[in-house]
Amino acid sequence: MTTPIDGTRVLRDLYELRKIGEYKTGVHRPSLSNEHVMSLQWLVERLKAIDAEPIIDGIGNVLGYGKPTTVKLLAGSHLESQNYAGWLDGALGVVYALEAARVINCNDAFNAAAVEVGAWCDEEGHFGHLLGSRSFCGDVTESEIDAAINRTDSGKMRDALAKAGLAQKKRERLETGRYIGYLEAHVEQGDWLESNDLEAGVVTTIVGVWQFKVNFEGFQNHAGTTRMAIRKDAGLAAAKLCVTIDDCFPKAAGPRTVWTTGRLTLDPGAPSIIPGKAEMLFQIRDADSRVLARMESLLYELVADADRSGPCHAQVESLRKSQPAKMDERFQAALETAAERIVPGKHTRMPSGAGHDAQIFAGQMPAGMLFVPSIGGISHHWLENTSNEDIVLGAQIFTDAAADLLRQELAVSS
Amino acid sequence: MTTPIDGTRVLRDLYELRKIGEYKTGVHRPSLSNEHVMSLQWLVERLKAIDAEPIIDGIGNVLGYGKPTTVKLLAGSHLESQNYAGWLDGALGVVYALEAARVINCNDAFNAAAVEVGAWCDEEGHFGHLLGSRSFCGDVTESEIDAAINRTDSGKMRDALAKAGLAQKKRERLETGRYIGYLEAHVEQGDWLESNDLEAGVVTTIVGVWQFKVNFEGFQNHAGTTRMAIRKDAGLAAAKLCVTIDDCFPKAAGPRTVWTTGRLTLDPGAPSIIPGKAEMLFQIRDADSRVLARMESLLYELVADADRSGPCHAQVESLRKSQPAKMDERFQAALETAAERIVPGKHTRMPSGAGHDAQIFAGQMPAGMLFVPSIGGISHHWLENTSNEDIVLGAQIFTDAAADLLRQELAVSS
Repeated sequence: MTTPIDGTRVLRDLYELRKIGEYKTGVHRPSLSNEHVMSLQWLVERLKAIDAEPIIDGIGNVLGYGKPTTVKLLAGSHLESQNYAGWLDGALGVVYALEAARVINCNDAFNAAAVEVGAWCDEEGHFGHLLGSRSFCGDVTESEIDAAINRTDSGKMRDALAKAGLAQKKRERLETGRYIGYLEAHVEQGDWLESNDLEAGVVTTIVGVWQFKVNFEGFQNHAGTTRMAIRKDAGLAAAKLCVTIDDCFPKAAGPRTVWTTGRLTLDPGAPSIIPGKAEMLFQIRDADSRVLARMESLLYELVADADRSGPCHAQVESLRKSQPAKMDERFQAALETAAERIVPGKHTRMPSGAGHDAQIFAGQMPAGMLFVPSIGGISHHWLENTSNEDIVLGAQIFTDAAADLLRQELAVSS
Repeated sequence: MTTPIDGTRVLRDLYELRKIGEYKTGVHRPSLSNEHVMSLQWLVERLKAIDAEPIIDGIGNVLGYGKPTTVKLLAGSHLESQNYAGWLDGALGVVYALEAARVINCNDAFNAAAVEVGAWCDEEGHFGHLLGSRSFCGDVTESEIDAAINRTDSGKMRDALAKAGLAQKKRERLETGRYIGYLEAHVEQGDWLESNDLEAGVVTTIVGVWQFKVNFEGFQNHAGTTRMAIRKDAGLAAAKLCVTIDDCFPKAAGPRTVWTTGRLTLDPGAPSIIPGKAEMLFQIRDADSRVLARMESLLYELVADADRSGPCHAQVESLRKSQPAKMDERFQAALETAAERIVPGKHTRMPSGAGHDAQIFAGQMPAGMLFVPSIGGISHHWLENTSNEDIVLGAQIFTDAAADLLRQELAVSS
């Protein structure tokens, strides 16, 4: 049974959000920037319109608590963006949650059930790692916030919270047992759906992300007077490791394993100085922790080889290991049933290569995720886009799945 | 015939200069910083003590014009340092010039001859390329200074000149025919002298430096959701070129050709984003312009290969080509004769792999350069050093060569 949404309203909301921090056809709305705070206030106004008692908490999460009901589903995503990046990344999931709340909470058929909406601060990691959803789930200490620094401008998160008027606010905490689960929608950010002519993806697992820093130590010297034979060029050593990884990783990888050197810094980085140090940020993602462990071993092996063969020292340091997060089977089934109703035959189950707030909530309660297609698979770039038609289809699938999950629960509890 | 110097005075001067901007056992004295300006004033005081009428000109050069004489030799080097780098790089040549002026200008045997001392601003290229000596030789326009930006903090050179109180001062210009030539001493900055157990190097040629920027254009995308097969990783493309250069350049190089990737920048440089762009600063140095041209062709070939084979575009841009500068044969002979007297059998003729102000003066008049050994060949690093004994031996060779050149000229003109 379909619970009809208002597709025009969904698109209008998303286009309004795009105006806040607009950059070319995308947005620049980093965490706790003026534009981000404006987008939080925008959501507060929309939630007030459906009597959802919205608040912005002490870490910049928006929560819309609904009327007292027996059965509640939590739904949401994030409103900040990567720098100069896509307009739908995060915003789509928040607007879908808002639309589901509008349709379901005001529907007499659901008077004992509601969708509550959340927008989780800093999913994009300007200050940390999924800080908003982790804070809501009780996994962020005050000292982690004290230490959090903006990766673009090195500003303190505390100062940004104060500037946003949130310094004195308390942080909301998830009330145990309040929700039947968490539902999130997101743009796919890859080209799997589009290249297979599909309209919807039901997420099975959110991949684990294992992040490393590789440090190279050579010897800084003059680029004109130091003979090639005696150089210890840390930049060249780092470049060689990138190429060796590119050669060796494919043989050990799973079918969907991905790995990336996102940053490479040569020190001191002057044209006439042989780099004495180099630092490489490297990450591996897979939905299977055994594959992650295998790739990690290979990385350590390649770095040890580089160190042994010289002339520079190389050392790898593990920065962060998030484990793959499984989505709840019943939530997957609800999304699949709704997708089959709206886009018959044009949906698939698939892992998420990107991290999402849903992976945090999956540790607390059943969680599910829906993907809509990304045009050309483009993401974290202002060119990111999804067709209006796909946006509306996705919103309908999302609301239907939310409604079905609530109905199932009402049937059990009645 | 030796014209005896005061070795203790030379060392005292150098140790005094090291106190100005001291960093570990080196100095941090970037161009037009407070510390650099203090070092210029230090030199002004020393030159006043020998009635040299010193001035600091509008680009931060110090010039000590001596008494009216018929025969003059210009000698000097620079007082600013690379960031957190060596204490002798530049300072040694200035103090040698000062000592030669003290010994020769006050010596009755030379009453018709003098050494005039110069300290040339920004040889180290904080704001540009050999700006001080090029300004003195009439090769720097006002608009070049308008555009000059500090490579470390992006501050304008105009603002730095104003802060140093030099904004209203005019720039000094070389008076045609005033000097019989230019003499400069410098630490070798390589390990050739030390590893061959030599005490002095007579520079034959200052190498040409050809500087390039290689730009890679891939496609910025999400590091979790973009399959390996469809990636266009500009960072990986840059790393591959570094390794290919390391493979191919040795076969085409001359015995002393050197090449360096000093900086590699991945854009946007975030751990979870596939770099869409990469920029590589690359330079080649050789004393032979035919070798430089051959290596340049090879670079263009390798970049074109990288561009053709994809998946990223690669393009090379030439930033700057300084041609090798030959030192004057008579100046080389004078330095060699003096070296043979002071350190018999322990000197050699050799090219300079580093750029120096002498290469600018070589375009205007006969020029010569003397090298003293660098311990361990270390340069552009605060560990740079030379033994006290070698410093004093070098000062004696330098003053003797200056005296011999002036004597030769006096003999011709009398």
